Amino acid sequence: MDILVSIFSTLGDQLQKPTLSFLIAGMVLAAMGSKFEVPEPVYKFIVILLLLKVGMGAGISIQSASLSALAVPAIGAAVVGIAIVFLGRWTLARAKGVPQVDGLATAGLFGAVSASTLAAGMAILDDGNVPYEGFIGALYPFMDIAALVTAIVMAKMAKARKLASSVNAGGTMTMGGTGGAGPAVPQGLLKDILIDTVRSPAISALLAGLALGVFADPKSVYDSFYEPLFRGLLSILMLIMGMEAWSRLSELRKVAHAYLIYGLAAPFLHGALGFAAGYVAHVTTGFSAGGVVLLAVMAASSSDISGPPTLRGALPEANPSAYVGTSTGIGTPIAILSIPLWIAIAEALIGW
Amino acid sequence: MDILVSIFSTLGDQLQKPTLSFLIAGMVLAAMGSKFEVPEPVYKFIVILLLLKVGMGAGISIQSASLSALAVPAIGAAVVGIAIVFLGRWTLARAKGVPQVDGLATAGLFGAVSASTLAAGMAILDDGNVPYEGFIGALYPFMDIAALVTAIVMAKMAKARKLASSVNAGGTMTMGGTGGAGPAVPQGLLKDILIDTVRSPAISALLAGLALGVFADPKSVYDSFYEPLFRGLLSILMLIMGMEAWSRLSELRKVAHAYLIYGLAAPFLHGALGFAAGYVAHVTTGFSAGGVVLLAVMAASSSDISGPPTLRGALPEANPSAYVGTSTGIGTPIAILSIPLWIAIAEALIGW
Amino acid sequence: MDILVSIFSTLGDQLQKPTLSFLIAGMVLAAMGSKFEVPEPVYKFIVILLLLKVGMGAGISIQSASLSALAVPAIGAAVVGIAIVFLGRWTLARAKGVPQVDGLATAGLFGAVSASTLAAGMAILDDGNVPYEGFIGALYPFMDIAALVTAIVMAKMAKARKLASSVNAGGTMTMGGTGGAGPAVPQGLLKDILIDTVRSPAISALLAGLALGVFADPKSVYDSFYEPLFRGLLSILMLIMGMEAWSRLSELRKVAHAYLIYGLAAPFLHGALGFAAGYVAHVTTGFSAGGVVLLAVMAASSSDISGPPTLRGALPEANPSAYVGTSTGIGTPIAILSIPLWIAIAEALIGW
Repeated sequence: MDILVSIFSTLGDQLQKPTLSFLIAGMVLAAMGSKFEVPEPVYKFIVILLLLKVGMGAGISIQSASLSALAVPAIGAAVVGIAIVFLGRWTLARAKGVPQVDGLATAGLFGAVSASTLAAGMAILDDGNVPYEGFIGALYPFMDIAALVTAIVMAKMAKARKLASSVNAGGTMTMGGTGGAGPAVPQGLLKDILIDTVRSPAISALLAGLALGVFADPKSVYDSFYEPLFRGLLSILMLIMGMEAWSRLSELRKVAHAYLIYGLAAPFLHGALGFAAGYVAHVTTGFSAGGVVLLAVMAASSSDISGPPTLRGALPEANPSAYVGTSTGIGTPIAILSIPLWIAIAEALIGW
Repeated sequence: MDILVSIFSTLGDQLQKPTLSFLIAGMVLAAMGSKFEVPEPVYKFIVILLLLKVGMGAGISIQSASLSALAVPAIGAAVVGIAIVFLGRWTLARAKGVPQVDGLATAGLFGAVSASTLAAGMAILDDGNVPYEGFIGALYPFMDIAALVTAIVMAKMAKARKLASSVNAGGTMTMGGTGGAGPAVPQGLLKDILIDTVRSPAISALLAGLALGVFADPKSVYDSFYEPLFRGLLSILMLIMGMEAWSRLSELRKVAHAYLIYGLAAPFLHGALGFAAGYVAHVTTGFSAGGVVLLAVMAASSSDISGPPTLRGALPEANPSAYVGTSTGIGTPIAILSIPLWIAIAEALIGW
Repeated sequence: MDILVSIFSTLGDQLQKPTLSFLIAGMVLAAMGSKFEVPEPVYKFIVILLLLKVGMGAGISIQSASLSALAVPAIGAAVVGIAIVFLGRWTLARAKGVPQVDGLATAGLFGAVSASTLAAGMAILDDGNVPYEGFIGALYPFMDIAALVTAIVMAKMAKARKLASSVNAGGTMTMGGTGGAGPAVPQGLLKDILIDTVRSPAISALLAGLALGVFADPKSVYDSFYEPLFRGLLSILMLIMGMEAWSRLSELRKVAHAYLIYGLAAPFLHGALGFAAGYVAHVTTGFSAGGVVLLAVMAASSSDISGPPTLRGALPEANPSAYVGTSTGIGTPIAILSIPLWIAIAEALIGW
C-alpha cells in the first residue's frame, strides 16, 4: 500500500514539472485549433542539437566507464528492442483488420527509441537531482537499431514466405529447402538495413556526437552551449510534440481499433520490459536507479524521427497512417507522460 | 521648461541604446539596398520565443498579483483598444480617398498590439533599471482582442447598413427594425471573431505562455533559457523590423496621403491615450510608472504579426497594402522609436 | 630543428580541439553517406550571427584603437587580397584546360575571406588564451573587397581586350589608344562592383555589426548573447562545412586537374603572404602575434558565402562548378585544418 501511495504522490508532483506541462500545453493548443506552429527547419534543428548533445554527453562519459558497466545495459537494450518486435508480432500483427506488414512496422517503431522522450526523461531526472550514468545515450542505438532491423527482416521474411507458399500451392518447389525456420534472409538485406539505419539523420547525428565525445575534446563547447540550451529547446520540442500528437490522432480513425489498444498499452508493457532489463543490470553491475528509469523510458518510447523514414524506405507496402499515427499520436505522448511512473516505481523499489 | 529639457536629454540617451540602434541599423541596411536577410522560419521562431517569454513572465507574476491591481489596468487596456478604433473611424475612415473598410482595418491594426514593440519597451526599461509589474504581458490580449473585434464588427455593420440602405432605396423594408443603432451584429459573428483571434499564432502563443506560467512551474526553464535569450533575439528582431519597415514604405505610394498622416500621428495620440489610462491606474491602484510607460507603448504600437492575417480573414474586401503598409511601414518604427518619449514623460511626471 | 619539433607538437594538439574535430566529423558523416543535414535557414542564420558578432566585436574595439595600429594591417590586408588574385592570374588562369575567366574567378574567391574560417581561427586562439587585437574583424572587408574587385575588373578587362584584338584582327582600330596597359576599365564598372559587394549579405552584415559597435552601445547584448553563442554555433557550422566540403569534392571531377593542385597549394601560399604582411605590421606597429595568425588565416581562407553570388552576378560566363568546387571542396577545409600551422609558426617565430 505504502508503495502505491508513494508512487501516486510522485506522479502528481511530476505532472506539474515544466517538461510535461509543455507537452500538455501543446496538446491543448492543438485541441483549441490554434494556428500556432514552430517552423519545420527550427524543429529539425532542435532535434539535431538534442541528438548531438545526448551523443556527446554519452561519448564524454564512455571514456571513464568500465566495459562491463557498459556492456550489460547495452545488451539489455538490444534484447528489449528485439523482444518488443516479437511481442508486436504475436499481438498487434495478428489482430483483426491489421495487415501483418503494418503490424510489424508499428512494432518496429515502438521498439525503436525517441530521442525527445529520452531527453525529456533525462531533464525530469535532472530536475529531481536523480543521478544516472552519463553513457545512457550510448544505449540508444543498441535498442533502436535492434528493433528496426528485427521488424524489417521479419516483414521481408513474411513476404517471402507468403510468396513461396503461394508458389508451392501452384505446385513448384523453389525455396523449400530451409525447413521449419522459414525462408533464409535474402543475401545482403541485413547489411542494407544496417547501413540505412546508421545513415538516417537521427542515428548519424547521435553517432557523430558519440564519436566527438570519445575521440575529440568537446567538453568546453558542450558545457557552454549544448548543455545550457538543452532544457529550453526541449520545452519547445515538447510543445511541438504535443500539437503533433493531437493532430495525428485523427489519422487513427481510418485504421483498425487494434492500433488504439496497442498504442495505449504498449508503452507500459515495453517500459516494464526495459525496467526489468535495467533492474538485472542494477543487480549484476550496479547500474544506477536513474539508469534503470531511462532504460524503461527508452523502451516505452517509440521512434518519431529516424524510424518512420527508415520504415518507409524498407517497407514501402506498409501504411504510414497506421504506424506513424499510432506511434506519434498515442505512443509518444503516453510514453512521455508515463515517465514519472518509472521514476516513482524506481524510487519505491530501488531508491536513489 | 525643466520638464522639456529632461525629456529631451532622456530621449537623446535612449537613441544610442542597443534596442533602438538595431532598428535603425535595419533601416539603413534596407536603404542601402543590402541583400542581407534573416530567413523567414528563424524570424517566426524568434517571435514565438518572445511571445512565450512575455506570456510566461506574466503568468508567473499573476500568481502573486492582487485581482484589483490587475483588473484596473486590464480594463484600461481594453478601453484604450476600443477607443483607438473609434478614433480611427472618425478620422482616417472619413478621409478623402480612404474606403471605410480600409480605414477601419487600419485603425484595428493600430489598436492591436505589437509583441516586438512591447518587448522592446521592456528591454529598454530593464536597461535603465526601471521596475514594472511582471504581469504587464497579460494586458496584451485585452487591448489586442478588443481593438480587432471592434474594428471587424464595425466594418461588418457598416457593410450591412450600406446593403440595407441600398435595399431601402429600392423600396423594400427588410432590416429596418433596429432603429438608430444600426443593424444588429449578425448572430455568431462576435463569437467567430473571438475564436479566430484566440487561435491566431501570436495570441495563442501568448496565452499558452500565460497558462504555463500560471498552472505549471516553468520558472527554471524561464530563467535559464527564455529570459537570457530574450535580449539577443530582440536585437535580431529589431534588425528585421527596421528592414521590413523601410521596404514597406514604398507600398504606401499607391494609397491616399491620409494613411501617411495617420501613420505618423497615431502612435503619439494612441500612446498618450495609453499613458492616460495607465496614469489613472497609477493614481487608483498604485500601478508603477514603468507599467504606465508600457501601457503607452502597447497603445502606440500596431500589430505586426497576429493582426494582419486576422483582418485578412475577416475583412477580405479591405486592401492589405493600405493597412499593413501604414502599420509596418510607419506605425511600428515610429512606435518603437518613440518609446524613450514615454519614458521621459513618465520620469518627468511620475518619477521612478 | 627545435622549431620544427615545436610546430609539429602544436599541430598535433590542435587537431583534437573541438573546432577542428567538428569539421572532421562533418566530413566523415558525408563520406559515410549520412542523411544528416542542418536546414538551410538555420545555416544562414548561424552565419549572420557570426558575422554580426565579428563585426560588432571589431566595432567595439575600434573605438579604443589608434589609427596607425589599424591602418598598417588594413593596408596589408588589402595588398594581400590583390596579390592573391595576381598570383592566380599568373598560375591557375594560365594552366592547361582552365578558361581565363574561371581561373580569375577562382583566384578572386581564394583572395576573398571566409567568415567561418576567420571565426574558427578566433575560437582556436581563444582556446589557447592567445591574445589578438579586437579590431581584427574590421580587416575582413579590406581583403575581401580588394580581392573580389581585382578579380572581376581583371576578368572584364581580359574580355574587352579579347574582343578588341579580335576586332583588330578584322582590320579596324577602335580601342587601341590605351597602349600597353590594356583597355581602360569601363566607366562605372568599379563603382558597380563595389556597390554589389557592399550590398552582399555577408559584407553588409559585417558592416552593420561594425557600425553598431562603433556608433551604438551594444556591449551588453554582445556579452550576453552574441559572444556566448559564438562557440556553439561555430561548432554546428564546422559540421555543415565539413559535409559541404566532402560533397563538393565530386564536382571537381568534371574540371581540370589544375584546380585540384591550386586548391591544395594556395591556402598555404596565401597564408604565408598574410603571415608576412602581419609580420611587417608586428615589426612596425606592434601588431600582436595572434593578429599575425589571424591575418594568415584570412589570407589562407576562401570566400564561402558572399563571394560566390557576387561572382555569379558579375561574371555570368564563369563556371561555378570550377570556382565553388575548388573553394568549398578543397580550399576551405584545407584553410581551416591549417590554422594550427600558423599558430605553431607564430609561436616559434614571435612567441605570445
